[in-house]
Amino acid sequence: MSGRSPTSDDLVSELRRKIRPDLVVTTPEILENFRADRSGLRSDSAPIVVVFAESSSDVVEVMMSATAHRVPVVVRGTGTGVAGASFASAGELVLSLERMNRILEINEEEAYAIVEPGVINGDLNDVLRDRGFWFAPDPASRAISSIGGNIATNAGGLMCAKYGVTREAVLGLTVVLADGSMIETGRRTMKGVTGLDLTALVTGSEGTLGVIVSACVRIRRAVPGGVSTVNAYFPSARDAANACLAVSSAGLTPMVMEIMDDQCLAAVHAYLELDSPPSGSASLLLQFDGESSTANAASANDILRRHGGRPETATDEAHAEELLRIRRSVHPAMARLGTTLIEDVCVPRTRLADMFDRISEIQRQRGIVIPTVAHAGDGNLHPNFISETDHIPEEIWDAAQELFSAALEFGGTLTGEHGVGTLKKRWLRQELGDTQVELQRRIKAAFDPLNILNPGKVF
Amino acid sequence: MSGRSPTSDDLVSELRRKIRPDLVVTTPEILENFRADRSGLRSDSAPIVVVFAESSSDVVEVMMSATAHRVPVVVRGTGTGVAGASFASAGELVLSLERMNRILEINEEEAYAIVEPGVINGDLNDVLRDRGFWFAPDPASRAISSIGGNIATNAGGLMCAKYGVTREAVLGLTVVLADGSMIETGRRTMKGVTGLDLTALVTGSEGTLGVIVSACVRIRRAVPGGVSTVNAYFPSARDAANACLAVSSAGLTPMVMEIMDDQCLAAVHAYLELDSPPSGSASLLLQFDGESSTANAASANDILRRHGGRPETATDEAHAEELLRIRRSVHPAMARLGTTLIEDVCVPRTRLADMFDRISEIQRQRGIVIPTVAHAGDGNLHPNFISETDHIPEEIWDAAQELFSAALEFGGTLTGEHGVGTLKKRWLRQELGDTQVELQRRIKAAFDPLNILNPGKVF
Repeated sequence: MSGRSPTSDDLVSELRRKIRPDLVVTTPEILENFRADRSGLRSDSAPIVVVFAESSSDVVEVMMSATAHRVPVVVRGTGTGVAGASFASAGELVLSLERMNRILEINEEEAYAIVEPGVINGDLNDVLRDRGFWFAPDPASRAISSIGGNIATNAGGLMCAKYGVTREAVLGLTVVLADGSMIETGRRTMKGVTGLDLTALVTGSEGTLGVIVSACVRIRRAVPGGVSTVNAYFPSARDAANACLAVSSAGLTPMVMEIMDDQCLAAVHAYLELDSPPSGSASLLLQFDGESSTANAASANDILRRHGGRPETATDEAHAEELLRIRRSVHPAMARLGTTLIEDVCVPRTRLADMFDRISEIQRQRGIVIPTVAHAGDGNLHPNFISETDHIPEEIWDAAQELFSAALEFGGTLTGEHGVGTLKKRWLRQELGDTQVELQRRIKAAFDPLNILNPGKVF
Repeated sequence: MSGRSPTSDDLVSELRRKIRPDLVVTTPEILENFRADRSGLRSDSAPIVVVFAESSSDVVEVMMSATAHRVPVVVRGTGTGVAGASFASAGELVLSLERMNRILEINEEEAYAIVEPGVINGDLNDVLRDRGFWFAPDPASRAISSIGGNIATNAGGLMCAKYGVTREAVLGLTVVLADGSMIETGRRTMKGVTGLDLTALVTGSEGTLGVIVSACVRIRRAVPGGVSTVNAYFPSARDAANACLAVSSAGLTPMVMEIMDDQCLAAVHAYLELDSPPSGSASLLLQFDGESSTANAASANDILRRHGGRPETATDEAHAEELLRIRRSVHPAMARLGTTLIEDVCVPRTRLADMFDRISEIQRQRGIVIPTVAHAGDGNLHPNFISETDHIPEEIWDAAQELFSAALEFGGTLTGEHGVGTLKKRWLRQELGDTQVELQRRIKAAFDPLNILNPGKVF
């Protein structure tokens, strides 16, 4: 079997003595699944072993053995990451947390839930909905992504401008460190400043600092009032972006504000076998919640019209759901077009229109198709670089480089919500600078002196 | 002069060559001011020198010299900290940032401001108000505390349950490291996940990791609609705490929810020379903002009445301001009672009533006066331990120890918003555990290998 060596044989035998043996898997067909995540990247070879941990004590045992044998560990939730942080290759151990998927406590009075890392975001929300609560982090992958993965990437989603990113929803974490010791970061209370904020530091650390074995997350009471959904067509994504700025400047805070450019919109309609949208149109989807949602949607309609949009308010819930379904179908629609590199730059909102223009230029000059969707409320764009080969070719990377440079030039960032993983590590210094990268490496070493946690990712 | 030595003479001469000499102060009467902050603690001796930096390049020079001479640096804003993190003693250099007090940019469309660390919280809010914006972090000290200090302590305040703590308002920081190198953490965009979240890590680090020389902070558009203010008397703080839980459970989110126990309320009324409040009463102050503020206040009134309260809605702005003034006068009123140790435990909201009871017990058993005020929305209590001596006597520390143990027993934390400083470092391990404290020390060393940034504080 590829990747096996005396060390790895010893490790596997040791793990099978310490952990229920059927959780320690070396079946080649299963190992194959862990060579990729949803980044479009794939490792050259399979890992040694996958451990399907069922408890924090399994995780402790794995980390103690990994430390003893100096074997790198790739922590993985449901493998839906799109930055290439959660796949493994020869010589590595995959620590899968997907079976640690119990909701341990829901405390309505304190407005928190304690969950294991493998709980699916949508599953928690299903349980909470019945109790009149919800969990705000809302990545587009919420039906399939785990809360542990959401935390490990500090996931964003559709509602960040109004309800914050995942970091704002994490109160405390139980983390197993590289050597198998365990810490409790943060707290269950609303506030707390005892020591350094390791909860925030581990959030978004992409498996490089420790293994999250449980999380205390903030839950919110359902917002009273209905939701009003508006869809508008615009002559261009630039016009839609400018309309969004006007909506924000009017003091309106939609919970959702999503732009699809013409290519993206057309591709999704084709994928869903819907009537084609008006030719060449971009779309803007707005959702308002709260007691003033209807009035706010009406105000927004006026603004959109003044900015060249043709808005239409959803007549009922089925209509609203259909509009949202179009937005949520971007990923599968893109996958049908070819191999997709999903990018994730974030720019100041006032530069969103410029960024759409820059993407058009890159398309024109390089002859690449780049349908783009954006969380307009926070300036976060997902350009989808499409290629017809089965891997991402070098000219796509060159185009992506141009995109990143533009994002930084506009005062933005390489990654709004997906993370660095392997996909963007070559650009890390361009954004953070050498001094900060060296400092971040020293912090990583403070957690993981042997560099066994996701080595080669991020840094 | 106390604290002078060949090293310190060299340091001072060097600084006077590198920085405008009048900014490098060794006048004994001025140095005296830096032996204390507002914690009630005072160092044994004066620092070597105070540098009143006027620019980030002054800060760089100070840190390079401090590194070269291995001299500890205490970074200080306006010195309003209450945990003893910002005072200095013999052999130390004070780096005062109070003159770095310029607002560098206010960007309304992007909803951020860039400020130097010495900008007073209230001053920024005054400027923002004219533009229809505000800065949410609202410590009770906002008229005198600096934004740099707010960030260094991750300050809370009266509105955290609704609008978050300081961390949620910080987008990015420019930080000078111990060796004088400079990094830019975070971003100006709404989202971003490139690398580890050093913005959050530096926030709340109490001067132990680096020197904040500018901050990009999130500002908010003024909330449309008015503010409704309700004051209610209750037979006890326990009753008031239970009423608060009922208000939250009804789905109401006041922006302010403050409880004063009977002793605190009586002391403030005496201090302000107001008619005495009803004998033995605790009070609850609620403020609702937003378009439904009046309706929400009315709903809250009903709930308070059902829980034994006698609520009264402020009739006009002057009345509301008077009610707030009573709350904001707690600190000076306490100072008049004697030497005050202001405590800062935070507990799950459902344990707030129990914590009030425990404080009563401590008072009874130990014969100590402990008037208490609480941010009820987030379970954060400020018991004020009063003593008649000019320093805090050992029996007060013993009582505080009992308080901390109770907070931890109830699932809470040592400090909700004031920080650890010197005041609580002896209890750090009790909350974080040895493993986490050692890890935090290694992180501190990754930033500051010579341990010259606020040594002896927090850790």
